[in-house]
Amino acid sequence: MSASDRPPAEDQAPAGSFVREVPHGDNRPRLVCTDCGFINYENPKVVVGSVCAWDDRILLCRRGIEPRKGYWTLPAGYMELNETTADAARREAWEEAQARIELDGVLAVYSIPRLSQVQVIYRARLLSPDVASGAETVEVGLFRWAEIPWPDIAFPSVRWALDHHRRALAEPGFPTQGNPQGEAGDYGAVAGV
Amino acid sequence: MSASDRPPAEDQAPAGSFVREVPHGDNRPRLVCTDCGFINYENPKVVVGSVCAWDDRILLCRRGIEPRKGYWTLPAGYMELNETTADAARREAWEEAQARIELDGVLAVYSIPRLSQVQVIYRARLLSPDVASGAETVEVGLFRWAEIPWPDIAFPSVRWALDHHRRALAEPGFPTQGNPQGEAGDYGAVAGV
Repeated sequence: MSASDRPPAEDQAPAGSFVREVPHGDNRPRLVCTDCGFINYENPKVVVGSVCAWDDRILLCRRGIEPRKGYWTLPAGYMELNETTADAARREAWEEAQARIELDGVLAVYSIPRLSQVQVIYRARLLSPDVASGAETVEVGLFRWAEIPWPDIAFPSVRWALDHHRRALAEPGFPTQGNPQGEAGDYGAVAGV
Repeated sequence: MSASDRPPAEDQAPAGSFVREVPHGDNRPRLVCTDCGFINYENPKVVVGSVCAWDDRILLCRRGIEPRKGYWTLPAGYMELNETTADAARREAWEEAQARIELDGVLAVYSIPRLSQVQVIYRARLLSPDVASGAETVEVGLFRWAEIPWPDIAFPSVRWALDHHRRALAEPGFPTQGNPQGEAGDYGAVAGV
């Protein structure tokens, strides 16, 4: 579950400069390129992931990329164009953990307003315990609750999802969750562990 | 619930031309400006809305803008940066129908892959029946189920949400829904009514 967008490489930096102004017919300032007039409408990005269970164990992936390289996360990532959220969840499980999954429902819809990020997290079941590291993952594992490496969890929202998943197992009809009360996904809350 | 992004006005068209190529370090083609090198990462957009109830009546808004001008929709719209989905739902209810609402939970997460759109729809209660047209709305109304103007509903996902809301009222613990089986939000399905 990446907390940052793809960082621009040096050769990807725009030559033009952007100014923030309210385009004609709009009501909010947007980034406009002074060279070519391109308006960069910025919208929140959607991260889709899943809590994937195999019996009483949960799939976690150790990140091979920044941010939070070396820390454990759920199989999750940015949605691509022309996908459904369900397709994105299955794609990410495959790309990050070579995992085939069946989705059970929407566990949570989290917002990380600081990052302009919406996270749609599914409950899912592994179709097989055969999982393996994908391109952005250095290690995968199936963890029982007591085995979860809490100090090495990558992001607050991973903790939220694990906790909500555990509660959903215990309570039939447990509703789709949002952020825990008062929590905004502040990175420091994890870094300070 | 707008089905299209803001259309570019003539004076907003970029002077540079964009080519589709795979940027260095990426694995998918993206639109890159040949003039300034700007990479236009395109991501799905998030629409947030709500089914707002006042007793046995539901708030609908008649659209004052295209697409589907003159047709009825839910108070919904594109999420802005640095918002939560809950804040976006409350903002849209206010902007489109001058409605103050309290959110009850996530009714549905729909995907419209053709439009690269994710719709997060809440169940909500009006804090007062005093509603009025906002900037993009020409008329608002509170409708009992039998009074809903079905032939004049703007988008398939509005029908889905109304139907799911009705089922949620009847079934305690009704889970958060996705698209109805086999449905992708095809516009033609409404236009043909």
